Amino acid sequence: MTGPDANIENLIALMARLPGLGPRSARRAVLHLIKKRTALMSPLSDALLHVAQTARECVSCGNIGTSETCEICRADKRANGQICVVQDVADLWAMERAAVFKGRYHVLGGVLSALDNVGPEELRIPLLKRRVQDDGVREIILALSATIDGQTTAHFIADELEGLDLTITSLAQGVPIGGELDYLDDGTISAALSARKAF
Amino acid sequence: MTGPDANIENLIALMARLPGLGPRSARRAVLHLIKKRTALMSPLSDALLHVAQTARECVSCGNIGTSETCEICRADKRANGQICVVQDVADLWAMERAAVFKGRYHVLGGVLSALDNVGPEELRIPLLKRRVQDDGVREIILALSATIDGQTTAHFIADELEGLDLTITSLAQGVPIGGELDYLDDGTISAALSARKAF
Repeated sequence: MTGPDANIENLIALMARLPGLGPRSARRAVLHLIKKRTALMSPLSDALLHVAQTARECVSCGNIGTSETCEICRADKRANGQICVVQDVADLWAMERAAVFKGRYHVLGGVLSALDNVGPEELRIPLLKRRVQDDGVREIILALSATIDGQTTAHFIADELEGLDLTITSLAQGVPIGGELDYLDDGTISAALSARKAF
Repeated sequence: MTGPDANIENLIALMARLPGLGPRSARRAVLHLIKKRTALMSPLSDALLHVAQTARECVSCGNIGTSETCEICRADKRANGQICVVQDVADLWAMERAAVFKGRYHVLGGVLSALDNVGPEELRIPLLKRRVQDDGVREIILALSATIDGQTTAHFIADELEGLDLTITSLAQGVPIGGELDYLDDGTISAALSARKAF
């Protein structure tokens, strides 16, 4: 059997390690790239190299950018006394797409997990405490996943920040916009019911 | 709204052009890559660059490799007088994975399609005719998709090769191995029934 050339095989193996791609879709992607060598493959290689060399975490909030401090931490008008705590950079991007939050972020880089051996030291929680004390933060908004690990982490952070002069809030839980009751899980329905409000 | 850095945004846009990835999965893939800058992102960039610079189509069969003539066309023992005609390199790789065909290939690079303006000149069909005449080919195996365009192309090739001293065959159609009748489409069942054989 004569499969693809060794270099192409190597490229397929690397592509297959991306989330969302398996061996079959990696093969398809590589063939597509080879067909579009100049229009897509070379630019993609350049872009990957450039980002690999320049991407770094913001020393203050953990967001990914190309400078020591990210754009949001550099923007003075985002210093409104609110910090939104998120699990990952993807969540920060999602919040920014919604374009309603005007404050700054703190990216934990994960959630506490006994199984995966993730403790508070791994999660920039001490750094969050320091930011709260130094930067005149008035409100911490916990925007963590509604999973057991996410909520454990939220409670742990709330405990850590106890005694400091600030409000701690978390995202509301309930029926998602456009969501049909019939398709919702029991947990969401029960959370939405207990947090019901006057109509 | 402050989204990802412009370079990261550009990388996401390029990744989203790969088949099987959309904007959301491209974002996930890029964040994964940034987390694995040294282990995955740099090697992937190098591999892409290397393949972009070296990959080329075999002048004889259209297979993708890194030399003028591909490995299969260079291997003397594959010159057994059989040529398997496939639509794309992905199909050639699939045939090679099955590891049962010992001859050479001819990659059309598509199928005839009036809608997409693909005529015989775009498909290396003249080149196939020349190979048949020059290389002492005894059998052409048409391994094209069982779609209308695929079958139109198969008939067109058979017409083109008429009068030459060779056998033209095509892959058998029927129930796939492991396939349950209940889940098969009507066309497959009717093809399998009319091609039934003694048990």
